[in-house]
Amino acid sequence: MDERAALTLIDSWLPLAGDDAAVLDDLVISTDMLHETTDFPEGTTRYTAGWRSVGASLSDIAAMGANATAAVAVYAAPSFEEPEIHDFIDGARAVCERVGAEYVGGDLDGHDEFTVATTVVGDTHEPVRRSGASPGETLCVTGTLGRSGAALELFDHEPERANDLFQFEPRVAAGRAIAAHAGAMMDSSDGLARSLHQLAAASDCGFDVAGSALPIDECVHEVATDELDVYELAVHFGEDFELVFTTDAVETVRSLSPTPITPIGTVTDDGVTLDGASLPDRGYSH
Amino acid sequence: MDERAALTLIDSWLPLAGDDAAVLDDLVISTDMLHETTDFPEGTTRYTAGWRSVGASLSDIAAMGANATAAVAVYAAPSFEEPEIHDFIDGARAVCERVGAEYVGGDLDGHDEFTVATTVVGDTHEPVRRSGASPGETLCVTGTLGRSGAALELFDHEPERANDLFQFEPRVAAGRAIAAHAGAMMDSSDGLARSLHQLAAASDCGFDVAGSALPIDECVHEVATDELDVYELAVHFGEDFELVFTTDAVETVRSLSPTPITPIGTVTDDGVTLDGASLPDRGYSH
Repeated sequence: MDERAALTLIDSWLPLAGDDAAVLDDLVISTDMLHETTDFPEGTTRYTAGWRSVGASLSDIAAMGANATAAVAVYAAPSFEEPEIHDFIDGARAVCERVGAEYVGGDLDGHDEFTVATTVVGDTHEPVRRSGASPGETLCVTGTLGRSGAALELFDHEPERANDLFQFEPRVAAGRAIAAHAGAMMDSSDGLARSLHQLAAASDCGFDVAGSALPIDECVHEVATDELDVYELAVHFGEDFELVFTTDAVETVRSLSPTPITPIGTVTDDGVTLDGASLPDRGYSH
Repeated sequence: MDERAALTLIDSWLPLAGDDAAVLDDLVISTDMLHETTDFPEGTTRYTAGWRSVGASLSDIAAMGANATAAVAVYAAPSFEEPEIHDFIDGARAVCERVGAEYVGGDLDGHDEFTVATTVVGDTHEPVRRSGASPGETLCVTGTLGRSGAALELFDHEPERANDLFQFEPRVAAGRAIAAHAGAMMDSSDGLARSLHQLAAASDCGFDVAGSALPIDECVHEVATDELDVYELAVHFGEDFELVFTTDAVETVRSLSPTPITPIGTVTDDGVTLDGASLPDRGYSH
């Protein structure tokens, strides 16, 4: 059974799971595991690894429209070197500070492959689910798309810049601003295309995206070999951890959010299309 | 640098860490990673793995004298098989139900070695620290000692019984009852001996333990080869996840706790001794 099929099955057993984060009363909680071979390309610093792995869970909290409160991480590696652990914690602390959360510690574990497990808790009275989109709403995205895909191409010859691009800002403040005006929301960790298919399934709706409206990051154009590659990095690659949401109050949300928001399409009755043509459910599976 | 040295260093960088769980206002949070080669002997069922890994984090919450609220886990394995994942979740849910917490889900990750990362959150107004022991108090322990060490010997020929012994009850209710009357508290995950050395260091005190008072589990006598082995399993092996605490109100605590409580010694000015002889700081390092 592949990971997506298994997750669908688990969601059917655990009614509180199945969204970007689990919700229990006012508590929101999300956990993730990242490891060297799949998540940290050669050249990724421990600082970036700390930032990115804690950031991934913070992004899940952001996607619920919640405040992020506290983060923990398990640092698992073949050996424990003071400078590496210090850099990791510095990165974890820095990303938490960026969103007003506290990095409170965690655990160490001896492990063949460098692996990080992170958990973030947050709180909200009104979580935004994946299931609340309605036809007629506007589809929006925060920030820009394609940074992580572009970074991957840069680790080879511009590792410093690649590390910078890998240190994304979790959209907690934007998520809070959007929450009261959103129909449905999730983060784009699996790529825009796959996120839209997941939102469509959860909300029983469709989406039509306008290709020309996509806020594609400048660095994507630098590294992409052609226009097809641009779309691949911006639409399918994922790991940008931007918020994808629906709203009928675009201007209000834009005025409240500290992060730029771009309307990229509309909620339809069914089907996920890009400029009217079917957009395949293809992305990065973690 | 070994794991203990690294943890000590991390505690100096992160003031909110360093106890059984991190505390942030009323929130208590703890995270752990367990994996096949070190934590799940051959014959451990996925049900037991789910129970035990979530139980380890619940025990950390218990050791703070807190309520346990919610648990999450990352299930990382080379493949995802429906019966195995289902059993794991059943075990995780069962141990949560036992202590009034909710298992709310988690994440999956493809991984060479079966690995579990768990996080539990809880709440309390008055966390019990490792640092509050005072000379003259009575040293106590909940339940019995040596179950996990004995279980390890049984996996070979009595796997069912070994699995049962591995499914320990996290002492959340006992921890709540003890909290208002405890000087210092922690769980015995690294063994009684090592726990006492850690409590002594945190509280700047010592302990004298009466060997005849130790509540050694019956199964230890069954599997132990001689008296030395009995002490090894009960005092040094660890992983029993009992609470070790100090109090000046033994009878009150005994009447409040749903788990039997045994006084095993006294808090002294310095040194950790068993029947007056030095008790070495030796145990199981995770």
